[in-house]
Parts: sequence; structure tokens; C-alpha cells
Amino acid sequence: MKIYVPFKPTNPKSRLSKIMSEDERREFAFQLLLDVLDCCEEAVVLSASRDERLRDLKHEVDERDLDTAVTSRIKKEDSAFVMSDLALISKKIVKKFLDTDGDVVIAPGRKGGTNMLLSRSREFYTSYHYGSFLKHVRIAEKLGLNLSIFDSFYASIDIDDESDLLELMLHGKGKRSYEYLESIGFYVDFSEKEPKLKRA
Amino acid sequence: MKIYVPFKPTNPKSRLSKIMSEDERREFAFQLLLDVLDCCEEAVVLSASRDERLRDLKHEVDERDLDTAVTSRIKKEDSAFVMSDLALISKKIVKKFLDTDGDVVIAPGRKGGTNMLLSRSREFYTSYHYGSFLKHVRIAEKLGLNLSIFDSFYASIDIDDESDLLELMLHGKGKRSYEYLESIGFYVDFSEKEPKLKRA
Repeated sequence: MKIYVPFKPTNPKSRLSKIMSEDERREFAFQLLLDVLDCCEEAVVLSASRDERLRDLKHEVDERDLDTAVTSRIKKEDSAFVMSDLALISKKIVKKFLDTDGDVVIAPGRKGGTNMLLSRSREFYTSYHYGSFLKHVRIAEKLGLNLSIFDSFYASIDIDDESDLLELMLHGKGKRSYEYLESIGFYVDFSEKEPKLKRA
Repeated sequence: MKIYVPFKPTNPKSRLSKIMSEDERREFAFQLLLDVLDCCEEAVVLSASRDERLRDLKHEVDERDLDTAVTSRIKKEDSAFVMSDLALISKKIVKKFLDTDGDVVIAPGRKGGTNMLLSRSREFYTSYHYGSFLKHVRIAEKLGLNLSIFDSFYASIDIDDESDLLELMLHGKGKRSYEYLESIGFYVDFSEKEPKLKRA
């Protein structure tokens, strides 16, 4: 099973721009990518544009939109797509995901997203964004494909906004992205009924 | 294994007060409770106060704080505690949780919470709120107990705020709590890049 990690180098994590500079967001997104690659043996970075930092990493540049880039690869061979900001996944979780039966296997993310997806069918095609999880379920059903849902809290955490950073700072000790956030002053304040993300 | 479902009948879901009246929140919290009980065979509602609506349900009233009420039961027998607002759990997920090995098994929730917890040890004790998940991990380690973490996206969704209602409206079709929200006008708007919770 070929594993791809879709990655968008330019202006990443824009929703964090109130609390992180563009340079910090660029570095943070790259550390997240390295964390994900640590968990996926032989993965190929599927980059939306050229980026100097990818030169020592197995990567392919595909400037087409995400659906076209992903679906064209599904048409060729069994393939899996693991989003590049799943900060809390582990080797064990990825292995369990790849070993899950089904023509199509999907790990849901918050807000109706699709955080990990694999297809063993040449017929399947993707429709990311605008609530992709439910669309992907419907596409699999329409094509009569056997769909499995991979239920994982850690795989459900992609990094979009501050609430996701809090999850990373709560559960991500030892991760490169965690260390980077800590190095630029982020920490968790436990003094209230619910933990709060803070930056020194 | 005895299963308890801690429940707080009075003024529930206060963080939803901007979009739901107190009566609506009370009814919604009760529908969530019924959804959870549907998934837990022979569960006992552990209610923080008397409530007429519980009369036909197996329940115990314990007006002590949550930690005292839960820990006193852990001291007596193997017991599990499933929070009453885990709208997206299923019988299968609860069974898998109860079958998980370990002296203590914890299902993490967002914001460092503990959404499901079981103890096969009389020594364990709880410390809910203020980031309970990490505290419970430390307590188990300190006591030299074997801890397992139950990794489930669906069990990680407890209903606190609007973002959690969105998850319920995305993934909870068929649940009583979903039907109730739909009946009072809630729906998901898919017209933007990310789905949005709306109320007619």
C-alpha cells in the first residue's frame, strides 16, 4: 500500500495567524509533517508546490487541486492518504489503519473532515472539504464499495485552530511539533476547570 | 462489571444557553442520557440530585461531589463510568471499551477530559475536571497500575459547546439527541468550506 502525505507549503495554518507569525506557522507546519512521516514508513510527501525543505524527503509535486492529485493516484494502485497535520497519530495507529479491512477506509476528523483515507478500489474518487467525510461515505455507498470507518481520537485531531493546539499540548509530549510550540512559549494553564492554551 | 452513568439534572449544558433555552437544554441533556443508556446494558444512572424523570430508570442519587461518588464505588467493585453526554458512542464501542485489558482503562475526551473510565483495581481514585485525563494517567502510574488508553473519536465527543453540537449533527443521525436538535430547528449548512451549525 503506497502512503501519501498531502502537504501545502505556502501560508499554512492561516487560522493561527493571531497567535503565530507566518514564519512560525511555516516552521510549525513542517514539524507537523515530520511528525507524521515518523509514523508512516516509506511515505511520499504529496506537495502542492515546490519547497526547498522537501529536497531530502521522498516527495512528488502535484500542483493540481487536492481531489485531482489524490484521485489520480487512487486510479493507479492501492493507496493511503494521511493528512500532514495529524500531530497525535503513532506508528501503531497508522499500522492498525492500514490493516483495517474494506475497499475504502476513512478516519473522521472534527468538523466533518477526512483525516486518513485508503482505497483498495480503482473506482473510488475523493471530494475533500465542505464536509468531506459524509461525501466520501456516500461515494463509497453509491459505488457499492465496502466502507470501514476507523474510529480514533488521536487520528481525529488535525491542527486548524487554537483548540487543536491545546489537544497537541495536552497529548503530544515528545513530538517535534510539541517541542517546537513549547520552544516558542506555548504551555497549558491548568488553573481553571478546563485547561487553557497560553503563550508566554 | 457494573456500569454507572454520572448525570447532573440541574441547569445542564449552560454553555449552550446562548442558543438553547433552559427547558430545551434540560430536555436535550435527558435525550443524551437516554442515548448513552441505549448503549450500556444494565447501566445505573448516578444522579447528583433527585429527578422525577429518572423514576423508571435504574438510578442511584448521590449528592456528594463527582470524585467522592465515583471513587466510593471503585473501592467496592470493578466498575465503569460512562459520561451521560457521549452522544456518538455505540453498543459496539462500549463493549470494546469494557473488553479492553488493564487495571484502569480511560477514553480521553477533548480539552483533557475523561469521557469513559473503568477500574478493576480497588486502589484507584478519580480526580475529575482541571484536565482529568493527565491526572488519571499520573494516578494510575503512581499506584503502579496497568493503564490502557481507549482511543475512539466517537467516545471523545462529549457535548459542551456549539462545536460539539456540530459533531452530533454530522455523525449522530438516528440518535434521540440528534432527532431532538433537528426537531427544534438545528441543521448543518454545508455551503462553506467547513460545515456550520445553524438553527432555523
